[in-house]
Amino acid sequence: MSSTSANGAGPDVIRVAAVQMNSRDDKAANIATALSLIDRAAASGARLIALPEVWTYLGPSEGNRAAAETIPGPLTELLAERARRHGVYLHAGSILERREGEPLLANTTVVFDPSGEIVARYSKLHMFDVVLDGVASYQESETVAPGDEIVTFDLDGVSVGLAICYDLRFPELFRILALRGADIIVLPAAFTMTTGKDHWEVLIRARAIEDGVYMIAPGQVGQFPPNSWNYGRSLIVDPWGIVLATAPDEETVIVSDLDLALVRKARRQVPSLANRRPDAYAWPDAERAMALRR
Amino acid sequence: MSSTSANGAGPDVIRVAAVQMNSRDDKAANIATALSLIDRAAASGARLIALPEVWTYLGPSEGNRAAAETIPGPLTELLAERARRHGVYLHAGSILERREGEPLLANTTVVFDPSGEIVARYSKLHMFDVVLDGVASYQESETVAPGDEIVTFDLDGVSVGLAICYDLRFPELFRILALRGADIIVLPAAFTMTTGKDHWEVLIRARAIEDGVYMIAPGQVGQFPPNSWNYGRSLIVDPWGIVLATAPDEETVIVSDLDLALVRKARRQVPSLANRRPDAYAWPDAERAMALRR
Repeated sequence: MSSTSANGAGPDVIRVAAVQMNSRDDKAANIATALSLIDRAAASGARLIALPEVWTYLGPSEGNRAAAETIPGPLTELLAERARRHGVYLHAGSILERREGEPLLANTTVVFDPSGEIVARYSKLHMFDVVLDGVASYQESETVAPGDEIVTFDLDGVSVGLAICYDLRFPELFRILALRGADIIVLPAAFTMTTGKDHWEVLIRARAIEDGVYMIAPGQVGQFPPNSWNYGRSLIVDPWGIVLATAPDEETVIVSDLDLALVRKARRQVPSLANRRPDAYAWPDAERAMALRR
Repeated sequence: MSSTSANGAGPDVIRVAAVQMNSRDDKAANIATALSLIDRAAASGARLIALPEVWTYLGPSEGNRAAAETIPGPLTELLAERARRHGVYLHAGSILERREGEPLLANTTVVFDPSGEIVARYSKLHMFDVVLDGVASYQESETVAPGDEIVTFDLDGVSVGLAICYDLRFPELFRILALRGADIIVLPAAFTMTTGKDHWEVLIRARAIEDGVYMIAPGQVGQFPPNSWNYGRSLIVDPWGIVLATAPDEETVIVSDLDLALVRKARRQVPSLANRRPDAYAWPDAERAMALRR
């Protein structure tokens, strides 16, 4: 569903769906589950359907390369057909991407429009190089090369920003997306249980509040091999930080109607994008970069 | 309390106190209350005592100028004496500051060391120019000029960053403070009931989590003239985002022991300061500034 405003400048309300999965190391089963949940989301009338992070394969990292896809490739053909069949925008979460001549994979979002065309690609900027005491160590950068570009796409006249999982901890990215005009940001994730229980909801709500954007965050839930747990609790949050929908702990779809007037209302009431002080933000990075340029 | 580490490189644990007040338009009464709560905080063994925002006067904005102070001046003398008497660092929340020849006030934090010397001054960077539908309109910039500088100070070898109230909505400031070395950030505030109930705790916890810092946030609570309400719920939050202390809805003091090893642990486990991608953060401001320079 996407109801158009009186003045024709994009829709007033967009129905969106976030798909929560419990992907494991059986790629065929994961793809079958995703297609079935996409169908369920489409039946709810969603105009935008978003999958979680690395949903085609979650297992021992040694299996990542074998599970990776080329983009475009057979998987994106399948997804394009599904977007076309339902006439929806399909945000394919993220997919491990194999690229010709590149030793490392990428963790890449692909977005299809209702005609099945790829309208946006985004590769995760921030690598999950993290050591959780007594739980596990993750060194995403050993097998994945980060992206370099910040990406938005147009959905029926509304700007949608892209981010993936660990990106959530970097408010810089979300701020830049909002400054570039994003009214909605989609964050597919596979947040660990350890970090998710303390950080997931608070950081997603903070991004919504500080940038006045809708956040759509489809996550991975539950156990996957060899012995890891994802937090789940996929969320859809409004620009005031109110949680519109939360997924229970199972593979499922959550749906909300996003009223874009609330983006304008939040930013009119608390204009934190306009009240910034870029003249005073002396980034140490910028200083270093400027010193190098001299 | 401030227990020194084995290697002598600053304390391991710092006891800190956040003072919550319900300031009104009676300046003498507010000062008496503050001094009494400072004494109570000192008796708890706190090494750092922090007051809330604009605690000397909260009333009709027409009264702001008459209530404003010079820095240094009689009020800072009084506070310096109190810091000296107790042998503590006293973070004097924020004070409306009147400056020679300046038509506008400043909203200024002053920090005293245990000898009563002023060791840091910070004037609020972000003006609270906000319109809350059906509640009130605030235009801080009509009577207050913003500061331009980002400030940290040294407390027994630990770097402490300064921010005030509405600054909380600007993750840029907190990120820069952390990148400059702050392990603790103090945020005196007078958050409205309307925004506080939805934004206060989530944004404070987000700053703690994303920057791996302790947050000390002493707030104003309750009604003040002519007819406004502050949210209160002063907080002390650890670098994992765990709420160590929350103030109930009255004038009071909350105290926590900050274990600085938890800053190092949070940043070692989830190194979001180190994993940033400044090379990819194409700030529209910087682009605009560079375009102007060409």
